[in-house]
Amino acid sequence: MSRAAARRESLRATAAEHGLDAVLVTNLLNVRYLTGFTGSNGALLVRTDGADLFGTDGRYTTQAGAQVPDVELVVDRSTTAALARAAVRGGAGRIGFESHDLTVDGLAQLEKMLADAAAGGRVPELASVRRAVEAQRVIKDDDEIESLRRACAVADRALAELAAEGALRPGRTELQVGRELDARMLTLGAEAPSFETIVAAGANSAIPHHRPDTTELRDGDFLKLDFGATVDGYHSDMTRTLVLGHAADWQREIYELVAASQAAGRAALAVGADVVAVDAASRRVIADAGHGDHFTHGLGHGVGLEIHEAPGIGPLGAGSLAAGMAVTVEPGVYLPGHGGVRIEDTLIVTDDAPELLTLTSKELLVL
Amino acid sequence: MSRAAARRESLRATAAEHGLDAVLVTNLLNVRYLTGFTGSNGALLVRTDGADLFGTDGRYTTQAGAQVPDVELVVDRSTTAALARAAVRGGAGRIGFESHDLTVDGLAQLEKMLADAAAGGRVPELASVRRAVEAQRVIKDDDEIESLRRACAVADRALAELAAEGALRPGRTELQVGRELDARMLTLGAEAPSFETIVAAGANSAIPHHRPDTTELRDGDFLKLDFGATVDGYHSDMTRTLVLGHAADWQREIYELVAASQAAGRAALAVGADVVAVDAASRRVIADAGHGDHFTHGLGHGVGLEIHEAPGIGPLGAGSLAAGMAVTVEPGVYLPGHGGVRIEDTLIVTDDAPELLTLTSKELLVL
Repeated sequence: MSRAAARRESLRATAAEHGLDAVLVTNLLNVRYLTGFTGSNGALLVRTDGADLFGTDGRYTTQAGAQVPDVELVVDRSTTAALARAAVRGGAGRIGFESHDLTVDGLAQLEKMLADAAAGGRVPELASVRRAVEAQRVIKDDDEIESLRRACAVADRALAELAAEGALRPGRTELQVGRELDARMLTLGAEAPSFETIVAAGANSAIPHHRPDTTELRDGDFLKLDFGATVDGYHSDMTRTLVLGHAADWQREIYELVAASQAAGRAALAVGADVVAVDAASRRVIADAGHGDHFTHGLGHGVGLEIHEAPGIGPLGAGSLAAGMAVTVEPGVYLPGHGGVRIEDTLIVTDDAPELLTLTSKELLVL
Repeated sequence: MSRAAARRESLRATAAEHGLDAVLVTNLLNVRYLTGFTGSNGALLVRTDGADLFGTDGRYTTQAGAQVPDVELVVDRSTTAALARAAVRGGAGRIGFESHDLTVDGLAQLEKMLADAAAGGRVPELASVRRAVEAQRVIKDDDEIESLRRACAVADRALAELAAEGALRPGRTELQVGRELDARMLTLGAEAPSFETIVAAGANSAIPHHRPDTTELRDGDFLKLDFGATVDGYHSDMTRTLVLGHAADWQREIYELVAASQAAGRAALAVGADVVAVDAASRRVIADAGHGDHFTHGLGHGVGLEIHEAPGIGPLGAGSLAAGMAVTVEPGVYLPGHGGVRIEDTLIVTDDAPELLTLTSKELLVL
């Protein structure tokens, strides 16, 4: 059984538990997770009787055959309508749908399709399955972890190459560095950058989510790089902060503080650990040094087919860690108008120590 | 008045016409269009009394101040909730929302927020504004057209550079060429490729939406490249099909046929032209040559902040063209197992001849 087939079996079991005859999966990432399909239009009907259907439009007939060989294919301009009709024909009484994904208009259309397809007979009842597929996705299987490893390796290598080539030097702009980093990741096999790459020099490094602009890198500046690569649809996420030329004492001081906080956060990643406690373990280090007010965001988040997914690791998070979760640990200290440091890794929670996927050194690099 | 402010005035007029006190804009591209905000979380409340509110979370406080200086800012983890509360406080009786964007869960949350905010008082009524903002977006203003020109120029130049450098030669794989094209576009100033770049060599060129794989380019092969660049959020879209080494007679024949069909499609782009007639003008050329069954998709589509937006130009389209629309014209002939040709430009409909934005030659290039 393929990975995707095993994932569908798991959803099928959830559907049966909730008394559903079928689940209509419309979220495109969830469709990809459950089928392997990477096109831009597709939907999946998982049926408790096992006769699943995958729907897409005519552009993707060939691709669907190659990527989803083990699910019956329905080619239709209106995939959701086609799957709804099939569900009615199959006698489904209760159909689950993704209420966090389907739009208000989409639900109205679905209800109309079901009524039309029932043609005076019994119209199936619709029930939200909430984030049932996302709940599966939070624990990564071996294939997913391997994709994440490769996504992290691309980012590691892109940064190493740019640093070795002298691309991170005074006089260049944030935008130039960002574009080169993005281009290098593509050359190294990324499908795309994971998100809009952050390059923040000097005082801009104090802005947590600075957009690269024409600011020039200068001697003595912090240079904060927050970026990642997408491989097989999986996102890596890494932040490194380095110094150009010579590090001043205040720069070394906050760098070492953030590095210690980040190490404490990584050390707290354990099966069963409460996400609020993980955040607190890292945050305490910064707060104890009097910089609590300068760490203005949560500690980390899950990563996978989305760059931000469950679990959230922060003061307002909920739940605990489990083996196979992929998460970031990214504390920061930001001194407005002055400069800031963030250090971020992507890791896998395991029964032992977490597996570190972003392998770039966290020693303060002075370039 | 800024472009974004003028766009908000237009939406405000629509809202007033429909008896709405405010419109809650949740679609992120529509928020960007109406404010200039490029972050990943934001919502906008456009009020008929003129007191608009823009909401985002704490990550974007600095960016929102810079990008949206002329709308009052609300920083809140739950932007939609914050804007809903503000609307109730402002005494709104009827609030428009985007039913094609808001999810079923999102609507339920919004209804609860409004009831909570009303605190026993009158709960505002919700009414869909349908695609009111998309209806504005279909006609591009000068700023948008300039962004599209730049996006097309990046794609033109990337292809020209790769061809001049000999990157499109036998022995290289589709994947290598695709990654280089993507990387070059980023280096030339693109924010991202417009979509997953299509590189299709030999028989793969007969698959309209082929994903690049490890197929090697060979002498005598068609090489079909369908790609684009995103600049300022605006997407370019261009397809060129060339031949490696030497073009066979059958290749020249279908190339010239598609080129003639594409020219006919471009010539039919006029203010007031019915989109079905534009498609037919191009399709007729291919059908008359006996290849009607080998042109398996619509002629083109609108482009802008989305790679596919209104108007659709095809046999099942509806409506007519207007000045300022940005559209593609992209007929193709696909001979399964053999090879295919598609030629695609991005153009602006004007009162005179359409403005061609993708300037790469459409003569058959033999590399």
